[in-house]
Amino acid sequence: MADSKIIVQKYGGTSVGSTDRIKAVARRIKSSVEKGYSPVVVVSAMGKTTDELVKLAEEITKSPNRREMDMLLSTGEQVTISLLAMSLHEIGIDAVSFTGSQIKVLTDGNFSNAKIQSISTEKIRKSLESNKVVIVAGFQGVDDDENITTLGRGGSDTSAVALAAVLNCNMCEIYTDVDGVYTADPRVVERPLKLKEISYDEMLELSRLGAAVLHSRSVEFAKKYKINLHVRSSFKDDKGTIVMPREEMMEKLLISGVTTKLDESKITIRDIPDRPGIAAKLFELMGKNKIYVNMIVQSTGHDNRASISFTVKKSDFDEALKLCNTLKDELGATEINAKEDIAIVSAVGVGMLSAYGVAGNMFHILAQNGINIEMISTSEIGISCVIDSKDAESALKAIHKTFLEPESK
Amino acid sequence: MADSKIIVQKYGGTSVGSTDRIKAVARRIKSSVEKGYSPVVVVSAMGKTTDELVKLAEEITKSPNRREMDMLLSTGEQVTISLLAMSLHEIGIDAVSFTGSQIKVLTDGNFSNAKIQSISTEKIRKSLESNKVVIVAGFQGVDDDENITTLGRGGSDTSAVALAAVLNCNMCEIYTDVDGVYTADPRVVERPLKLKEISYDEMLELSRLGAAVLHSRSVEFAKKYKINLHVRSSFKDDKGTIVMPREEMMEKLLISGVTTKLDESKITIRDIPDRPGIAAKLFELMGKNKIYVNMIVQSTGHDNRASISFTVKKSDFDEALKLCNTLKDELGATEINAKEDIAIVSAVGVGMLSAYGVAGNMFHILAQNGINIEMISTSEIGISCVIDSKDAESALKAIHKTFLEPESK
Repeated sequence: MADSKIIVQKYGGTSVGSTDRIKAVARRIKSSVEKGYSPVVVVSAMGKTTDELVKLAEEITKSPNRREMDMLLSTGEQVTISLLAMSLHEIGIDAVSFTGSQIKVLTDGNFSNAKIQSISTEKIRKSLESNKVVIVAGFQGVDDDENITTLGRGGSDTSAVALAAVLNCNMCEIYTDVDGVYTADPRVVERPLKLKEISYDEMLELSRLGAAVLHSRSVEFAKKYKINLHVRSSFKDDKGTIVMPREEMMEKLLISGVTTKLDESKITIRDIPDRPGIAAKLFELMGKNKIYVNMIVQSTGHDNRASISFTVKKSDFDEALKLCNTLKDELGATEINAKEDIAIVSAVGVGMLSAYGVAGNMFHILAQNGINIEMISTSEIGISCVIDSKDAESALKAIHKTFLEPESK
Repeated sequence: MADSKIIVQKYGGTSVGSTDRIKAVARRIKSSVEKGYSPVVVVSAMGKTTDELVKLAEEITKSPNRREMDMLLSTGEQVTISLLAMSLHEIGIDAVSFTGSQIKVLTDGNFSNAKIQSISTEKIRKSLESNKVVIVAGFQGVDDDENITTLGRGGSDTSAVALAAVLNCNMCEIYTDVDGVYTADPRVVERPLKLKEISYDEMLELSRLGAAVLHSRSVEFAKKYKINLHVRSSFKDDKGTIVMPREEMMEKLLISGVTTKLDESKITIRDIPDRPGIAAKLFELMGKNKIYVNMIVQSTGHDNRASISFTVKKSDFDEALKLCNTLKDELGATEINAKEDIAIVSAVGVGMLSAYGVAGNMFHILAQNGINIEMISTSEIGISCVIDSKDAESALKAIHKTFLEPESK
């Protein structure tokens, strides 16, 4: 069997949310078999199963041991793989299911957020050679002492991409409850466009900035091994969006997505002496306290004094502000300003920085709509602005309309 | 740590039926730890979990693949072990849970009814040495290709006894929803007695004849390795019943239990030539067709012609009768009689055959109550009579009253 016929498919929790949906997934897999493919299928836990298991643990303790939590949660995927295998047998397709342990999805020992180190392909290849569909429990692995580990929420995407990598398979289909990656959240924007293609970097930037289609680690993995990810609906036959290397993209959009990120807070430390090591001291302290800093902007003012502004998750705001105050004198700062409730609106696109004036155009649109920009940060493929959270929705709509709805220009 | 301090405890599905009950089990384990024991705890799936998983499979297919069914069902115990470990942590007791795969409960590959071949004690001993309570998923193992297997309903009892055997631990506590082994079913008999002790053979005979307290294979295992089984309630502190070697019993009751077995049928083949090989031919045919034959009685009549009577499960009756008819001519039988609905009433006790007249006494009681005996079979420690199923309850009550309720004699 040539490797080129192997196809890795991943079905998320909604796609396998009931026994009827599992049957529908089985029929879809059957049609792949009939087209000559040898599917290796990764599945998540059924619908709300993981939440129900978490609830059981919460009835027992407020701070569950992480090893035992992984032992508990990994049962969810195990239920799905067995039911899907039965469902395939029922329609005449031979299939066999494997837990992470059985195919040795070896991870580090970081329970609840483990990283995959290797996967054994021996059992998978043997099963494929005897014309069996292989079904693998996503989200789970084992550390080198055979303890069960999990990869964190959304980790089944990463399981699927890792399998595609070890099986030398350059296409991985991610079946989900949306039919692709859109230029903006359809719940906010009226006419979002479905992208045919998007680069790994854009997808990563969009994930970081608030779009929750794919697990970031799965995209990093796909980028590293040059695996195309086809994000598509498990309820329709339409093609979805292919996440792929930038250089192979047919069409490079100026902007491929607009996002807003809420639940962020901003802190500004003013008038600190502009000397080396100030920023390092500040952000090392945040890191040590496990506070994730999103945007950072530093500006130099008069008299060699600088201001540093940065954003953190709203849930970390109180602690971050307290830490800044403990550093205030040491930094020689005159003032600390903070705003608990801000939004980050961002435009992401590989075509952006080869085109002139995108940033200027974006600032212009915000000004036209009476939206004040409090912070600006740019990367190779994105522009982000901190604005008042009450303006988030209108900012998103206005930017999307200008850049991505050509007929309305 | 001396082996003598290790104690194996098994908690059944009702005992761990909710998170509150799991917490209660954790407290009971804690009290064993405080008494100086090192518990190795085997648990079943929570309450109705197994039934719910079976229902999911039934929604998919009428004839689930047995490997996949074991994959599915084994998740039930895995949920319980993790929750119980968390529950112990919550009350300050260190604990670690293991699946059958993790401690290499090696079985044959007979899915859904696998037999344990060996268990690795390495991880268990290491955990006990670091003062951790060890929690093991009952009912499950792996075959030598790492496929997950299950031991059949009630298999957690066998897991517990097998663990006691490999850990050289001569006491295994079986916590359940009854507080011991009774002389008769309390739902039928008004004043059943709780036995302090019972021998392995009596327990096996009672199980075979209808009492469903322990998984037979667990009793056979316990007998082979001379492990005392303490059957007791997980809801009370009272001592229960100890299943033990006959020679170590303090008190040998004339009769330790009376049972009735319903849902049985009787077939009699009359007037067959009494020559070697007749019975073999008949019962080999039943065995080949997976029909379990319970009682067999052969009697020789006039002219060297014999009759063979036997009982089968009612669900096998139609097929068994058909098989007998295909053999009728070959056997040279003149007549086949069948009765679809009979009951077997039995008295079991190690003291029985060293005492005179028990059998006669039992027949007398049945006659006194106007109950006709259609077949009699005796073993070293038991007497069984086939009677009409409508008489089952009154037969049980009468025999129990005579032999086991002395004050009412």
